[in-house]
Amino acid sequence: MDIRAAAEMIGKREFALLKTELREMMPADIAELLTELYRSEENFGEKDLSLLFRILPKDTAADVFTFLDTDLQKVLINAFSESELREVLDDLFLDDTVDIIEEMPANVVSRILKAADPQKRRQINELLNYPEDSAGSIMTTEFVYFKDDDTVSECMARIRSVGLVKETVYTCYVTRRRRLVGTISLLDLLVADKTEQVGSIMDTSFVSVHVHDDQEDVSRLAARHDLAAVPVVDDENRIVGIITFDDVMDVMADESAEDIAKMGAVAPQEDSYFETSVWSHVKSRIGWLLVLMISATLTGFITNRFEAQIAAVPLLVAFMPMLTDTGGNCGSQSAAMVIQGMALDEIVTGDFFKVIKKELAISLICAAILAAVNFTRIMLFYHNIMIATVVSLTLICTVVLSKLIGASLPMLAKRLKQDPAVMSAPLLSTVVDSLSTLIYFTIATRLLRL
Amino acid sequence: MDIRAAAEMIGKREFALLKTELREMMPADIAELLTELYRSEENFGEKDLSLLFRILPKDTAADVFTFLDTDLQKVLINAFSESELREVLDDLFLDDTVDIIEEMPANVVSRILKAADPQKRRQINELLNYPEDSAGSIMTTEFVYFKDDDTVSECMARIRSVGLVKETVYTCYVTRRRRLVGTISLLDLLVADKTEQVGSIMDTSFVSVHVHDDQEDVSRLAARHDLAAVPVVDDENRIVGIITFDDVMDVMADESAEDIAKMGAVAPQEDSYFETSVWSHVKSRIGWLLVLMISATLTGFITNRFEAQIAAVPLLVAFMPMLTDTGGNCGSQSAAMVIQGMALDEIVTGDFFKVIKKELAISLICAAILAAVNFTRIMLFYHNIMIATVVSLTLICTVVLSKLIGASLPMLAKRLKQDPAVMSAPLLSTVVDSLSTLIYFTIATRLLRL
Repeated sequence: MDIRAAAEMIGKREFALLKTELREMMPADIAELLTELYRSEENFGEKDLSLLFRILPKDTAADVFTFLDTDLQKVLINAFSESELREVLDDLFLDDTVDIIEEMPANVVSRILKAADPQKRRQINELLNYPEDSAGSIMTTEFVYFKDDDTVSECMARIRSVGLVKETVYTCYVTRRRRLVGTISLLDLLVADKTEQVGSIMDTSFVSVHVHDDQEDVSRLAARHDLAAVPVVDDENRIVGIITFDDVMDVMADESAEDIAKMGAVAPQEDSYFETSVWSHVKSRIGWLLVLMISATLTGFITNRFEAQIAAVPLLVAFMPMLTDTGGNCGSQSAAMVIQGMALDEIVTGDFFKVIKKELAISLICAAILAAVNFTRIMLFYHNIMIATVVSLTLICTVVLSKLIGASLPMLAKRLKQDPAVMSAPLLSTVVDSLSTLIYFTIATRLLRL
Repeated sequence: MDIRAAAEMIGKREFALLKTELREMMPADIAELLTELYRSEENFGEKDLSLLFRILPKDTAADVFTFLDTDLQKVLINAFSESELREVLDDLFLDDTVDIIEEMPANVVSRILKAADPQKRRQINELLNYPEDSAGSIMTTEFVYFKDDDTVSECMARIRSVGLVKETVYTCYVTRRRRLVGTISLLDLLVADKTEQVGSIMDTSFVSVHVHDDQEDVSRLAARHDLAAVPVVDDENRIVGIITFDDVMDVMADESAEDIAKMGAVAPQEDSYFETSVWSHVKSRIGWLLVLMISATLTGFITNRFEAQIAAVPLLVAFMPMLTDTGGNCGSQSAAMVIQGMALDEIVTGDFFKVIKKELAISLICAAILAAVNFTRIMLFYHNIMIATVVSLTLICTVVLSKLIGASLPMLAKRLKQDPAVMSAPLLSTVVDSLSTLIYFTIATRLLRL
């Protein structure tokens, strides 16, 4: 069902038909439909939207709610009665509730907390206290665990009774004196002897993360070991939560987007592009722009020193952009390859000299090809063998140097515990620009006897 | 257990102890240990490694095998007897088997196919025929499905009997006359009435992908709907396979690395950084370098036209790098934000004018700040109000123009069904360089009356 069909049914008050149509749709798609209706010209108000929300099957409604924008969530919460709000909250997983609360203004937060029962409120407050981007901040406390001397039939009974309100029951956790000692899959329980103790059939090779571990490390671990859920433990190795694959996928998508932003020299932002105000956009960009603008003047000072040479042979200036651009491109290629390699765990910081050796070989071949093409081009257009020689020699030095610098910077950043992607193309091009300009005019002064 | 401890135990032939230690380790970590031993100075040969592999618990061995590098997989396959090879293959999921086969030389492939039973061989051959990066190429054919008139107890019996050899049983598929009509989770089966028909309790709101859909679309769909497995159907809507969350995570990691490479103007590569030869590295980089070098000469031609002005005021050259760099940086910031927004589905191509409006506002503020700082700096260092005015005016035009171009290029690419990341920083900087140079000398000529 598209927005036009939905709008028409709302207009004609055909809610029974609408209900049937909605039943065939995925929660994320229903959320998108609601958002489109909310943003459309026809201006469906909170009354229409909350009406639409109310005809959703109860178990779908909470799911749909998690997929909505913060704006629309606010609108709906305001339209809900206390009992409706409680109903939605009851069906939400704890980690989703916390995600929603984090984005809400104080008055909405207090309404949500009041609607939750005391135990849930306590858990929400605990989760809210974990540092941003930590495992604790994205985990849910809704998981199933057994004691190691529980029997298989006791475990199955427990799953049947609590299963539907837990985020996943397909991997359960086994504890001994509250410590995490193993994992067991629902399938293993299903095929096991009913009288067996779970401690004797559990899987003892498992990984866990600490509540304060970084969410990016958690997502890498989950991807590395193909885990549907990662258990989270505290200092005493007691299991306090789990992080499920859907949150891992969200972290992966966010981190990948953040890397793109960093490579473009933009400070990371919390909200989506349109939700972020113009001023916040300016703030996240102007810092790098100023730093890079000021540092680019270094190249200016260098050219200043060679003013006499430029006045004598103004043609030299014509090749400056090509030289600095090619240097910058070579550098960012190497940087991208190293950043990519480190992200995929193919390159570790110990590989420094292996990488440098490889980049040296690659850069020499690239330099030779580029210099040959360039020499030919200058000879054809300008018939000036001296200029062609100066430019081609500079090109060779620039290509080799920038590839080595481009490959080194991300590894250096990693060693200094900085994000490799921050040592990005722009910073690189500033360094490469001044170096290549210096080399260019030095070679020109010597060879052209200026 | 680290490599040193393992090497010592192998040296002392303490295999019982080694076996106990290995039992506590995750398959991916065992694979890393094997790889480190294989690559270490002490040169553990195929004999030691295949010995180590043989003492692994049978169900772990196949898992470990999937995590190994192609090189080491080849070494082990060569060391295996026919029956050992068959044992490992029996425990591998079909999609993993196909991944391995795709990287092997012909003689190894024929050994693997011979070792597989006829039904498996047929399925492998089918999977091998799907186009690269299609849903069919990453799916597995090992899934559990029921007919819609099967009862819950029939379904549970089926899961118990075939569960352990299927990649996941936690979501099962319901068919009617071989068409996919619904899904049902193991948990729902577990809590349902045993005599109920599965067709009456199945979930009819589900998504599926076509065998020829792109793997990136599949991974986005799985992440969007938080799916642990995505069913794959053929033209007739018959279910032919499933793609599980672990493969989705792999695709996400690969695509994110590919985006970084593209933003760095490197053509994507199949193998890891060190496995790729110097020549292949050169080939994946030299194309863009040549294109960008040649196009950068456009800026050269523009400066050529202003040779007289440069000879008259050589100081003008000093500000060229700062102007072109700042333009490039502004452009790549906007490009990064738009690429990121499109990757997260926050920006669609229909938002073109909304984006342009927002970028215009952002760029005007950034331009004002940068121009003010720059004007002050030039006045302090050079005490030349005319030059300061020319440079600052150019800066304003450049910043605004490059932000608009930077935001437009990725959206244009998307509209032309190209990858937005390819319209990357390097291509952008070439365009911005020539534009800013042209603006600079035009303004300078007018204002300085050159």
